[in-house]
Parts: sequence; structure tokens; C-alpha cells
Amino acid sequence: MKRVDLNCDIGEGFGAYTLANVDEASLLRVVTSANIACGFHAGDPATMRRTVEMAVELGVSIGAHPGLPDLAGFGRRSMNISPREAHDMTLYQVGALDAFVRAAGARLSHVKPHGALYNMAAQDAELAAAIAEAVRAFDDKLILFGLAGSHLLTSAAHIGLRRASEVFADRAYKSDAKLTSRRDANALITDPDTAARNVIRMVTEGVATSIENIEFPVRADTICIHGDTPGALTLARFIRRQLEDAGIVVRAVGLVE
Amino acid sequence: MKRVDLNCDIGEGFGAYTLANVDEASLLRVVTSANIACGFHAGDPATMRRTVEMAVELGVSIGAHPGLPDLAGFGRRSMNISPREAHDMTLYQVGALDAFVRAAGARLSHVKPHGALYNMAAQDAELAAAIAEAVRAFDDKLILFGLAGSHLLTSAAHIGLRRASEVFADRAYKSDAKLTSRRDANALITDPDTAARNVIRMVTEGVATSIENIEFPVRADTICIHGDTPGALTLARFIRRQLEDAGIVVRAVGLVE
Amino acid sequence: MKRVDLNCDIGEGFGAYTLANVDEASLLRVVTSANIACGFHAGDPATMRRTVEMAVELGVSIGAHPGLPDLAGFGRRSMNISPREAHDMTLYQVGALDAFVRAAGARLSHVKPHGALYNMAAQDAELAAAIAEAVRAFDDKLILFGLAGSHLLTSAAHIGLRRASEVFADRAYKSDAKLTSRRDANALITDPDTAARNVIRMVTEGVATSIENIEFPVRADTICIHGDTPGALTLARFIRRQLEDAGIVVRAVGLVE
Amino acid sequence: MKRVDLNCDIGEGFGAYTLANVDEASLLRVVTSANIACGFHAGDPATMRRTVEMAVELGVSIGAHPGLPDLAGFGRRSMNISPREAHDMTLYQVGALDAFVRAAGARLSHVKPHGALYNMAAQDAELAAAIAEAVRAFDDKLILFGLAGSHLLTSAAHIGLRRASEVFADRAYKSDAKLTSRRDANALITDPDTAARNVIRMVTEGVATSIENIEFPVRADTICIHGDTPGALTLARFIRRQLEDAGIVVRAVGLVE
Repeated sequence: MKRVDLNCDIGEGFGAYTLANVDEASLLRVVTSANIACGFHAGDPATMRRTVEMAVELGVSIGAHPGLPDLAGFGRRSMNISPREAHDMTLYQVGALDAFVRAAGARLSHVKPHGALYNMAAQDAELAAAIAEAVRAFDDKLILFGLAGSHLLTSAAHIGLRRASEVFADRAYKSDAKLTSRRDANALITDPDTAARNVIRMVTEGVATSIENIEFPVRADTICIHGDTPGALTLARFIRRQLEDAGIVVRAVGLVE
Repeated sequence: MKRVDLNCDIGEGFGAYTLANVDEASLLRVVTSANIACGFHAGDPATMRRTVEMAVELGVSIGAHPGLPDLAGFGRRSMNISPREAHDMTLYQVGALDAFVRAAGARLSHVKPHGALYNMAAQDAELAAAIAEAVRAFDDKLILFGLAGSHLLTSAAHIGLRRASEVFADRAYKSDAKLTSRRDANALITDPDTAARNVIRMVTEGVATSIENIEFPVRADTICIHGDTPGALTLARFIRRQLEDAGIVVRAVGLVE
Repeated sequence: MKRVDLNCDIGEGFGAYTLANVDEASLLRVVTSANIACGFHAGDPATMRRTVEMAVELGVSIGAHPGLPDLAGFGRRSMNISPREAHDMTLYQVGALDAFVRAAGARLSHVKPHGALYNMAAQDAELAAAIAEAVRAFDDKLILFGLAGSHLLTSAAHIGLRRASEVFADRAYKSDAKLTSRRDANALITDPDTAARNVIRMVTEGVATSIENIEFPVRADTICIHGDTPGALTLARFIRRQLEDAGIVVRAVGLVE
Repeated sequence: MKRVDLNCDIGEGFGAYTLANVDEASLLRVVTSANIACGFHAGDPATMRRTVEMAVELGVSIGAHPGLPDLAGFGRRSMNISPREAHDMTLYQVGALDAFVRAAGARLSHVKPHGALYNMAAQDAELAAAIAEAVRAFDDKLILFGLAGSHLLTSAAHIGLRRASEVFADRAYKSDAKLTSRRDANALITDPDTAARNVIRMVTEGVATSIENIEFPVRADTICIHGDTPGALTLARFIRRQLEDAGIVVRAVGLVE
């Protein structure tokens, strides 16, 4: 039996602010894991509490979504931080988010770095090792989410940390298994059929196809569903239905079958 | 001939964030003055530049809208700051906003403190004097916007600073000419006819009616139009039309007739 | 046998910044409990990690020291926050600090709100209840430090939370058991003999004397030692020696005798 | 007659915080130009006002010292910002600082980007052009300070902006005229005689010597004096005296002879 997790980023408001066009409550009804912003790139304490409570109520697995300390840039501008700084800012944010999870009577299940921190760690072994070590130091039962084939996953493996190999339904891949840049014209896959076909093949066959039409092996434990792209919710529902129709069990990574 | 200014707060996003339900470009087509957030309660540099450029393009008079350093609370939580601190944070924010106005080839016309800073200064003579002094020190041609009858206006008058007495179309008044609290059930006036009738009377007769149905004198140089209340845009357009139909000239405070 | 705890605030730097004149390593050798800043009024992640490691190494009991989100004002300017906001910002900061404590292989023992948050909660029953509830929700074994006789302590008692009644060695009291304002000329007690005599009497007899020379009952579980006043370190050492010479055991609140 | 400016960075505190070991008032008595932090990497409004007032009182030429929005990293961590973002954050900070200069009855004379922003712009033509354009848009009389031979200077030249070629007394150069990394063991020149001899030769002969002992041409309009290195003040005084003894006039860049 094949299975896969669907994860999305939520709680990405700040105070009175919201990101336009994100219907978080509906999105949470589609996914099985939620990555909740922890205050650095998004997410003030009140937003974090409400988001955690919503995720708990809807039975979604909860992860911390730590980012770079760059609210104005939404954590998407890479910064030249040291591994030690990456470690410390991960630990801080995971702890802060976990406090709300504990207060809500739930358990934190995973950690997924956000934006530039995720991308930097994917390509930098030292940053990846520092983040994995921070997660392990906080709770060695946590699962680290990282881009399929990236340093985040090898770093987690190296220290015996649980991990989930993440693929993207709505982003095009290059032949080296990396994501195309968000600035590329073809970076976003908006055709639902293409997106669904891609992820089903990743889950069932372990194979992905790059934007240059080259096949490469990929492991898909969890599929990232974006909430801030046009039609994101519709796409998410469509993908989930297609996965289930293909006989794939959609379930949070951490849950025992 | 009676005249009045319509002002609104804009540029109240931050980075990737927006306030839900505010259509700033449309709002700017209705008002004659815009108060632009300066980075403390809202408004990162990029948002400020874009907002200034939009206001310049639409020919709206531009004001700085300095607030308390409280992004998570949107500058609405009063803070126990000293007059000196109020002076310094006003000066900082007015200067920052003015840089974008200068770069856009325009001129800053006024300053309106935001949220809790506005309310605190309305009631505290020392804070009001410090803010008025900061405005004068920056540019003694600027116009200070303050709540009708408040310390902000008397402080401006005291040092010979130009000023505009502000009234609210969509907020209920108490008999002492103060605004009812936003937390009160009746704080917001949502009926367009009531709102329009109130402001026309303030402009033409200099009289307002409190929530307890008591009349009191008021001077209305400028009317605050909120953009973040439901139906704000429709209300703004309706009020402007009603004012004009009543023979009142709607024009920015600073403009020579 | 009489016993008392000595606590101090540390970790109050931020990035490259320090508070002038605070020798934290030496201070930690005198006290038995350390309240570590959690990022809102002071304390970036790197500072928090280093401070926690230092406290662990020196065997000092560790507490979280959450403050208002006001770095420029060092958390000393009161803000009009709701109880809900106080709850959420406490939970966030306690969780963040605890992450470093866990990573260092230690256990968090207490929570002491900082500056204006401490003072506001001392006088406002709703804020106090919200903070106590946040502490309990995080970990019901934690000890809440609060001003002797204040709402923080009654709130903790009300929900069965452990608590420590705090007195000040270097601050003058008013006859209602409240601290005199920092702005008062006589707010600080700088004479070592007076400070030591005062706290010994509070610990042994449960009595304090106000600035108006009125005696009032007080419970002294822990004595706050400031590190940022001139001669703070010398005063701290002197007080500790005087307490011990008077036969009082100086030990962290949470430790079993 | 040869002449040169001595500049230093000041106002680099934040709220209650200071950088250890910097005696700004004494430093200002040695230099002829001061670069004042503008709030992003350092410098809250109160610190900016006090620093500007001190610089005005001591007759030092005042420059804005805009940095990256990274208080915890003191603006020293490079960030992947767009030229547009560099433009906007420069404009914002220059305007904010200028407000205090105007309020103090003085005139802003120059702009020197700080830390990572300075280094990024030195090597990236698009960032440099965006910063130069922001300075020009604010006030086309301002002088842009940039590393000798860097893109900041060529960008300023390209749009007809006044500029000052900066050299460093206490930093070692590579043969390509770039600074060695702060992380290198030999990055700092601490021997006063070496430092003085180097800068005198740069000013009088227009020649510098790299760490590999290679000579290269350099233009020295202004010499950067750091305040946060050990013995900085003594070194600064020594260098000034040596320059004057060598017959070089030490005067702010913007001043007419």
C-alpha cells in the first residue's frame, strides 16, 4: 500500500495582517500536516495560538515552520547566517511554537524550515546539519521535512533523526532534482491534471520529470501544497481526490498505519 | 462657501502582508488627503514608496501617519512613552515618509498621528506638544491633523503651526466631543444616510450630536474616512457625493482655494 | 531554618549589544536563580543559548523572563495589552527559552515576567490570571515569581500553581507594599547595610518597612538582585554574605531542602 | 596641498543598549565626518537624536549610515535583496536621519552604507546604482561614500553624484584593492605606525600595499576610523596627528577649503 502526506504552510499572518487569498480553515480540511509560522518571517503569538487551535480541532498533524528573521521579506531573502545562528533560531522558534501545541493538549510532530532557510539548508550541508541538530536537541522524536534529495534529509539521517522527503505538486523541477526559481516563468504548475499526474507518479513509482523532460528518481513522503497561489484550494482538493482515486492513502507522516 | 477635506489612512500593509478588504487605489480616488503609514505600526519601505507614488499619481495631498512601534498590535495599543520619545518617533517617521515624497517629486502636506498615538496625544497635553514640536522642527509649513477639540490642535496653535480639525464620519461621539471606544457596540456608524447627515451638519453648522443625543460645537476641516470597515468604499463615495450635493467643496486642507 | 532564594535578570543583551556595566558571569556566581530574557525586550536566540549554557554550567536555577514586545524601550513602557495577548506572549517566550534549556540538558524551574509586564500584572488581576494560566498550560510544575502581595501570586494560588513571593533588596517600598517608582529620588537603596538589614528582616520576621517608615507584613521567598545598578555585584555579594551570616540558607526556590 | 577626511560610524546603540567599548564623544573629537546609524541595523529614534545633537555640537559633518534590516546581526549578514529594495531602504533611512539633522538646525552632508550593504554594493553594480539613485533622489547635493575602486563610486559618478573614495586605516587590503575578510587572522591592522604610514602614502602618493605586498593605485578622500576595535581611540588620535605632521589637512569632504 502506498501512502503520502499532504502538508501546507499556515498561520502566515502577523497581528492585524493576513496574506491575501489564503483560506486557512478550508486548506486545513484538505491536508494532513500543517507547518505553522513561528514569529520570525510570520506569525505573532496570537496568530500562532489560533492557528494551532484550529489545526488541533481539525485533527491535522502540527509542525513548526521556522524562518529567517525577516518579516518585511517574508523569510524569502537568503541571509548569510552561520550554522550556529541557524541552529539557535530554529531552536527558538520550535520551542515557541511547541508551547502553543502543549497548551492545546497536542503534540508537535515535525519541523519544516521556511522559504530561504529551507532552500539554503537544502544546498548547504553545514546549515542543514545545524538545523537537524537543533531539532534533535529539542525532541529526538520529531520528523524533519526537507526537499527530496537535499542536505536536510541526509543531515537528519546522519544523526538518526526521523525525516520526510518532500515533493512539490505545484512547482517545476530541474533535472538535478532542484526546484526551478520562483522567478522563472514556468516555475508554477497551475494545470491540475499535470500536477496530480506528477505527484501520483512520484508516490507510486518514485520518479519525477524535470522541466527539460528528463526523468529522475525521487522519494515522496509528503507533498507540499501551497495556499497562496491562485486557485490553491481547488488544486489541493483535486490532488487529494486524484491520489485517493489512485489507491494512495493520504495520511500524516508521523501516524502509524 | 463651505469646504472640507476627506482623508484616509493608506499604505497599511507590511512586506507581503495586507489588511484584508482595503482597496487603496479606489479609496484614493474618493479622498483628497492620504495619511501614509511610516514603518512603525505598518508600512515597510517598499510599501511606502508604492503608496506615495500612487497618491502622487492620483493627485491626493500626502501626509505622514506616524504610529507607535508596535507592528503586531498595529499601533492600536497605547504605550507609556515619554513626550521626548513621542517627539523622536514622530520626527523619525515623518522624515522617512518625506524621503519617498521628495523622491516622487511631490511635497509633504500634513502629519496625522495614528491609532493609539493619536488618541494618547488627543488627551495628553505634553505628548501633544511634543508631537507638534516635532512636526514644526521638521517643516513649519506642515499641517497637523488632530481630533476636533483635542490637545493636538491646541498644541499646534500654541506654536503657530497650521492645523486641521478632524471629525469622523463613521464613528459615534460622546457628549464631551470624544470618540466612543471601538469596543463599544455602537462605536461604528454604518448607516450611510446618518453618516452623511452628521458630517454635512458638522461642516455647514459646526455642530455634532453625541450618542446620548446631545449637541456640541465642532470644527470640521477634514473628515476621516476609514478603509477597513465593511463597505468603507461605498460609504466614502456616498459621503463625498452628499457633501458635494450640499454645495460643499471637497478639497485638500492645504490647497489654496 | 530560614531559607531564601536570590534571583537576578540576565541575558539582557541583543545581538552585538550589551547593557553597560553588567558582569553576568560574576553575578551568576552570587545568585541561586536566573531569569533569562526571551527575545521580546531583550535576548536574541544566540544570547539566550549562551546565557542558558552559562547558567547551567554554574548550577543556577533557570527561569524564563518574558517581557513586552518593546526592544527599544527594554520592556519598561507599559502597554495596553489584553489578558489574551499577555497569555500568548508569555507562552511564546516561555516556550522559546525552554527550548534552549532542554537542549542544554537542564530543566526550566520558574517564570518571572519582566519590567512593565511584571508591574502591570502585579496590579491587574486579569493580566495576572492570564499569565499564570499561560505558565500552568505550559508546565504545571513551574514556579511563578511575583511581587510580594501582588495579583500574580494570588492568581497563581487560585489555579494551584507554585509561586515565589519576591522582595527587592535595592528598591524602596511604599506603605501599601508596592515599590516606589524608579523615577523617585529615593527609589534605589544603595547603602549595603540598609539593603542587607531590610532583606534579613523580611526573611526572618516577615516584616518590611516603607519609605514613610511604616511596617507591613511581607513574605520573602526570593530576593531580586539587580545587575545594572552601580556597584550591583558588590552589593549582591554583600547581601548574600550577610544573609548567610544571619543563619539563612540561600538556595533556589524550587530545590528540595 | 593634500587633504583628507576622517570618518567614523557612531550612534550604534539601540534603546538601552550600547556597543561595548565605544566612547563616541571622544571619537567625534578626532574625526571630521560621522556616519550615524538610522534604525535598521542600529539606532532607535532617541539614540539618533542624541547622536545628531552631539555631532552638531562638535562641528562634525553628518552622514546617514543606512544598513540592512537586521538588528540581531548588526547589519553584517549579507541578504539577497533586490536593487529596488536597496533603493527603498536607503531612501527610508536617509530621510529618517535627515529629520533629526534638520531639527538640529544642521545639514546632512553624506551617505555611507553600513556593513553588509556597503560590501554588497561595492561588488554588485545594480545594488550600487540603486543606492546611488536613492541618494540622488533624496538630495543631489549629498556625497556618497564608497570603498575606493568600488561600484558605489562608479555608480555615483555615472549619475553625476558627488562621491568620496574611502580607504581603511585598520584593515588589510588584498591585491585586487578589496578588503580582506574580517574573519581572516590578518584582517585588522593594529600597529599604529603601520596604519599611519599606510594612510599617509594613500593620501600623498595614491598608492596602497596589499597583504601580499603588491602595490596598487588608490584614491583616498576619506579614511574610515573604527570605534569598536581595541584601542580604537588611541589609534585614531595617533593617525590624525601623523597625518597633520605630514602636512596633510584633515577636513570633512564636503567643506570648501
